Amino acid sequence: MSKIKVGIVGYGNLGRGVEMAIRQNADMELAGIFTRREPEGIASAAPMIRLSEVEQYIGKIDVMILCGGSATDLPEQGPYLASMFHTVDSFDRHAKIPEYFDAVDASARKSGHASVISTGWDPGLFSLNRLLAEAVLPEGNEYTFWGKGVSQGHSDAIRRIPGVKNAVQYTIPNEEAVRQVRSGNNPALATRDKHLRECFVVAEPGEDLSRIEQEIKTMPNYFADYDTQVNFISSEELQDKHGSMPHGGIVLRSGNTGNGSKQIIEFGLQLDSNPEFTGSVLVAYARAIHKFAQEGFVGAKTVFDIPFGYLPPKSAEQLRRELL
Amino acid sequence: MSKIKVGIVGYGNLGRGVEMAIRQNADMELAGIFTRREPEGIASAAPMIRLSEVEQYIGKIDVMILCGGSATDLPEQGPYLASMFHTVDSFDRHAKIPEYFDAVDASARKSGHASVISTGWDPGLFSLNRLLAEAVLPEGNEYTFWGKGVSQGHSDAIRRIPGVKNAVQYTIPNEEAVRQVRSGNNPALATRDKHLRECFVVAEPGEDLSRIEQEIKTMPNYFADYDTQVNFISSEELQDKHGSMPHGGIVLRSGNTGNGSKQIIEFGLQLDSNPEFTGSVLVAYARAIHKFAQEGFVGAKTVFDIPFGYLPPKSAEQLRRELL
Repeated sequence: MSKIKVGIVGYGNLGRGVEMAIRQNADMELAGIFTRREPEGIASAAPMIRLSEVEQYIGKIDVMILCGGSATDLPEQGPYLASMFHTVDSFDRHAKIPEYFDAVDASARKSGHASVISTGWDPGLFSLNRLLAEAVLPEGNEYTFWGKGVSQGHSDAIRRIPGVKNAVQYTIPNEEAVRQVRSGNNPALATRDKHLRECFVVAEPGEDLSRIEQEIKTMPNYFADYDTQVNFISSEELQDKHGSMPHGGIVLRSGNTGNGSKQIIEFGLQLDSNPEFTGSVLVAYARAIHKFAQEGFVGAKTVFDIPFGYLPPKSAEQLRRELL
Repeated sequence: MSKIKVGIVGYGNLGRGVEMAIRQNADMELAGIFTRREPEGIASAAPMIRLSEVEQYIGKIDVMILCGGSATDLPEQGPYLASMFHTVDSFDRHAKIPEYFDAVDASARKSGHASVISTGWDPGLFSLNRLLAEAVLPEGNEYTFWGKGVSQGHSDAIRRIPGVKNAVQYTIPNEEAVRQVRSGNNPALATRDKHLRECFVVAEPGEDLSRIEQEIKTMPNYFADYDTQVNFISSEELQDKHGSMPHGGIVLRSGNTGNGSKQIIEFGLQLDSNPEFTGSVLVAYARAIHKFAQEGFVGAKTVFDIPFGYLPPKSAEQLRRELL
């Protein structure tokens, strides 16, 4: 059987994660990486191609995996690339998902392609577990905890403070809150009760550290509603100890059945590398949308519309025999 | 919109769990409970009907939920009822699933019905998580731990020992083994390393307790390969403290991506009532197979073939907006 020819659009952390994931899947091959930068300067084993030349690859790539950002890249690239290729992406602006879905769906339908949007782990695997748990336990409460992991958005927010040279911010679930939920107590949890924020900050020489700490801790939306710990460290220590991108989290549903039986469903991730894991999820969904396209499906789907049986390379019969 | 009319076949623990779950789902109503016993003697708010009269209900029930046992009931009832109704069951003899699937599929195709087999939590939700985790992390190891929970099969095995009046057996995951897996160490675990077995036994008066304990601990398949603890207690204590049916477990996959990043996916259940939870899963899949039947699907499916979007009463659009 011929391999699934995959293209990657965007070669940042996520693009590299997808590249590594493709190597772990024998039924796939990386056909090319498309970038807006000058391809000549970028080191990679795969062909590096200017994104402006992507139209020349119509018919030569089975699925395109979109690894751009959700703020500005995907709203444009998603519908554009769905007009030429089957696509997968990890669009993660929850409030904008319906609008983005409609735009990709319209483009894919018009061109006769298939797309799956908003895969990854949140949105993605976490969303699937929220849905499953709610469907099985309609009377109950859902709790999502993120971390321990690096929040890129919060790290960026600290870096924008004058006098800050670099920073890494970890989101950390409050263990006591997690324990309360697991015990079936259905606690009412305020924002401050669920997560702590731990910041490692490199200040410019001669800056007033207490002023920077105060600016972080009182920053609206990002830190003001949380218990925040600020640690000033050297550039070297930041690079040595805080250079990787771990993440993870837990989706819990605590529900009741019958005459008050407590039932807890929990899904958790502990990830050494957030982009490598997200890339691995995108690759599995690339296989799924390829299968749907082969069956003649046209339009956009989300993870909610895709049976798990479409994710692995195994046949339905083999899955029933080995994994059910 | 009219409610989904659900029938229950078999009124043991699972049948009662399904009955309670239907009450928690406003889009469903319990149309009748079918039993092989004399219906007159059984207390229930729903109509109790002789199973021998089930043919009179063709066209009056949207989905039939089969709550019989997998050893002898379902192999006969599954294909028989699929010849008249859309069906859901929790057939759980892993090795026999391919054969059972084929029998139900053939019957459903012939009669123009839709069936989903082997739902529940194992097989069922655990199978789904094994598949998902393997598809996302192809390089890794899978570990399933069951418990803490009552194993009906092991409890029955103890009750068959001469001199034993009653018994309850708990399967308990070895905490140290779970910790090792969560740490990403990919341990090689023997049967004895993964689970402990704790037995509460009521002996007949005057029996030799050490003989009973020895017979339990050396019983092949059931106990010989495990560390087993045997506690002799009174009938009253057994009834007071060990009368409920808790269960649960964990499916873990520990995988690697990129250049050795450790990635852990975990799914866990903590259930006060095993039959009520299993019943709740069956009810969600009853809604799903009802939707598939309305779309014209004919034949058998498993949980692997059903997108999560089919499980709740919400529309695809609502799910994208609220849960993705």
